[in-house]
Amino acid sequence: MGFNFETMKVHLINIGDELLIGQVVNTNSAWMAQQLNLYGARVTWNAIIGDDVADIHRALTDSLAHADAVLITGGLGPTKDDLTSKALADFFGVEMVFHEPTYERISRIMEKWGRQMTEAHKGQCFMPANALILHNKMGTAPGMWFDYEGKVIVSMPGVPYEMQYLMEKEVIPRLRERFPGLPIAHRTILTVGEGESIIAERLADFEETLPPHIKLAYLPGIGQVRLRLTGTGEDEAELNAQLDVKAAELSELLSELVFGKGDDQLEAAVGRMLLEQGLWLGTAESCTGGYLAHLITSIPGASGYFKGSIIAYANEIKMERLGVRADTLQQHGAVSQETVIEMVHGAVSALGVDVAVAISGIAGPSGGTDEKPVGTVWIAVGSAGRIMTKRFVIGRDRLKTIQAASVQALNMLRQWLIEERNGVIFF
Amino acid sequence: MGFNFETMKVHLINIGDELLIGQVVNTNSAWMAQQLNLYGARVTWNAIIGDDVADIHRALTDSLAHADAVLITGGLGPTKDDLTSKALADFFGVEMVFHEPTYERISRIMEKWGRQMTEAHKGQCFMPANALILHNKMGTAPGMWFDYEGKVIVSMPGVPYEMQYLMEKEVIPRLRERFPGLPIAHRTILTVGEGESIIAERLADFEETLPPHIKLAYLPGIGQVRLRLTGTGEDEAELNAQLDVKAAELSELLSELVFGKGDDQLEAAVGRMLLEQGLWLGTAESCTGGYLAHLITSIPGASGYFKGSIIAYANEIKMERLGVRADTLQQHGAVSQETVIEMVHGAVSALGVDVAVAISGIAGPSGGTDEKPVGTVWIAVGSAGRIMTKRFVIGRDRLKTIQAASVQALNMLRQWLIEERNGVIFF
Repeated sequence: MGFNFETMKVHLINIGDELLIGQVVNTNSAWMAQQLNLYGARVTWNAIIGDDVADIHRALTDSLAHADAVLITGGLGPTKDDLTSKALADFFGVEMVFHEPTYERISRIMEKWGRQMTEAHKGQCFMPANALILHNKMGTAPGMWFDYEGKVIVSMPGVPYEMQYLMEKEVIPRLRERFPGLPIAHRTILTVGEGESIIAERLADFEETLPPHIKLAYLPGIGQVRLRLTGTGEDEAELNAQLDVKAAELSELLSELVFGKGDDQLEAAVGRMLLEQGLWLGTAESCTGGYLAHLITSIPGASGYFKGSIIAYANEIKMERLGVRADTLQQHGAVSQETVIEMVHGAVSALGVDVAVAISGIAGPSGGTDEKPVGTVWIAVGSAGRIMTKRFVIGRDRLKTIQAASVQALNMLRQWLIEERNGVIFF
Repeated sequence: MGFNFETMKVHLINIGDELLIGQVVNTNSAWMAQQLNLYGARVTWNAIIGDDVADIHRALTDSLAHADAVLITGGLGPTKDDLTSKALADFFGVEMVFHEPTYERISRIMEKWGRQMTEAHKGQCFMPANALILHNKMGTAPGMWFDYEGKVIVSMPGVPYEMQYLMEKEVIPRLRERFPGLPIAHRTILTVGEGESIIAERLADFEETLPPHIKLAYLPGIGQVRLRLTGTGEDEAELNAQLDVKAAELSELLSELVFGKGDDQLEAAVGRMLLEQGLWLGTAESCTGGYLAHLITSIPGASGYFKGSIIAYANEIKMERLGVRADTLQQHGAVSQETVIEMVHGAVSALGVDVAVAISGIAGPSGGTDEKPVGTVWIAVGSAGRIMTKRFVIGRDRLKTIQAASVQALNMLRQWLIEERNGVIFF
């Protein structure tokens, strides 16, 4: 009998004084848990402890009594605070031995950086005699794998990208070999524009049709919800075929909300649409203050479809740089359908782009009225020929309003591009 | 004898399946640890566990054997997954009793929201008989305080702002009363522009002068380092006087790097300087793509000193909207001192502002050359009359380069404003 996502238990132990004084937020655990879930293992306990030998021993003893595998991060650096290797050797009752290949590798790295090999670095080359050394291409401290009383213990550096490299290249492949389970597979569908509860209502009947070996998880973010179907089964080909059918059904049910699958990002998906449709984008932002432009330009290659933005925080910039009429601002206010339409026209013309996105709203905490409460945001997307507009009332938190308005604007741009591609023209 | 930050031990237990599947990053622990440190307590262990009665009992037993106080978050909601209250009652061997004031409070909240009181909400009103109820103004689930075998156990909701409210208003004041220690006090000095290692070198002699009862902690962020002096002593007035002297010495040593103290933010500090000096700000951004404008507008009230920005991602926007000359771009490139100087002039004129910040760089991952590697950033800050420029080579990570360049730009703006205030004029 193999392990699958119901049965194989993993404990995580994160070691480091910096975690216990709150200097660093522990993001490693969430990343590791997500990756282990993908491959059918379940994290059932996570201990965060200091650089203290007695505590390391106590956590290990406890975890070995309750888990199939124990994954440890941290405490492998060159300083005297880093005690994990020695603590492990003591725990196993083995000697620390000098690992020549690690010494040579660190020497080469130091040479390349033009630095001297220190005593501390030499110390990093002593490891418990029973360790299988896992090659860490991203840093000096290697990972270590131990088989111990039918269980597995792995020790990795705490630096996120080093840990991630070791997990992906060394640890997860070995865990899958060591604990062979039923085939497990996933389909992730990415949605934008509605919250978890609305989506759950629309999927209520669909969820009833899922067989017991396929589960649906909701992974919500700001303005976005990822939906992950996870299945296990004896026959991998059959399982994949079943998941494809269910993923297609789910995408069909949520049709207009779905923008992609897997690890895609909304800002990247919209960027690809612009490239494919040969359209140049610009933005005109008031309340979001550049956050939308930041999201767009966080994607490498954005210069292939994004020309720039006018951040018109002051009304005079709306008038002088975007050509919004004083009359419009006076009659309808800066946060109005009329204003964002004129901002789109102004951005198209000032930036020389094919399509522009305009946002104006009240991010708060002050500036709200009964008619336009804090969180009110008007968004317009369009070209000289066709513009769509929408009003949102988001919330009272300034940063969340900025972020959610930017995501909704990207979604409206996506919808506008789909209509443009499909030849739906409104005048 | 009292407790102080060397002696009082706290364990944290965070309960919730969402933490163990990696759906939510656990930010509560870092926040709680920081707050507890401020008041002289030390977190020595943090267990993250699922909504499972046996695991809750196991974690409690272990923590009571090693800590003076155990703070628990999570598992207090109205759904059937939320088991913490019942698990605590079973652990203490007491009955669950109905708490009338909580029932009345939840009823009033539901009435206000126009919702019905459900059976699940009634369930939330049953609490262990030995609980002291802590009023939670921010949500439905109250906090609970237990005195048990000479130790303290506290249970709070896992929603961050509810937990934070309870910690600040109810838990920390009671812990300080229950474990009275020596007076403890802090001074936090905020710096920008240099890394931890450079600052540590400049403070090496200073650190030698610190008496044993005053400690210095480095809290690094992107482009910024917070320095916290923490002291304990019998005589509170004397302690505060000593800390004031040491904080002044430290500020003097780092003079030009220090922008504030306590919980201040660089973008807020610069905003206040602009307001005080009566100057309007605008930005012209290329590689940062709006992130600098976003930082500035993340501060409420930014509309009092920030007019807007031209995000000139494409060279044609640099030319057409900022008046950068084609010659300059051709001879020196978009990432050059000459270009950012012309961008400042263009932004001052196009946005009608007194001072502008311009940034142009190579965020990567592609676009680097031997002469201008990925991470090269030119920044200019100034008015029509006086401009300062600086070149940075930041790193290979796209997002970090964007963030660090924006922080360095804010710091250059701060320096420019100081010179302007002091009447240092260069032509």
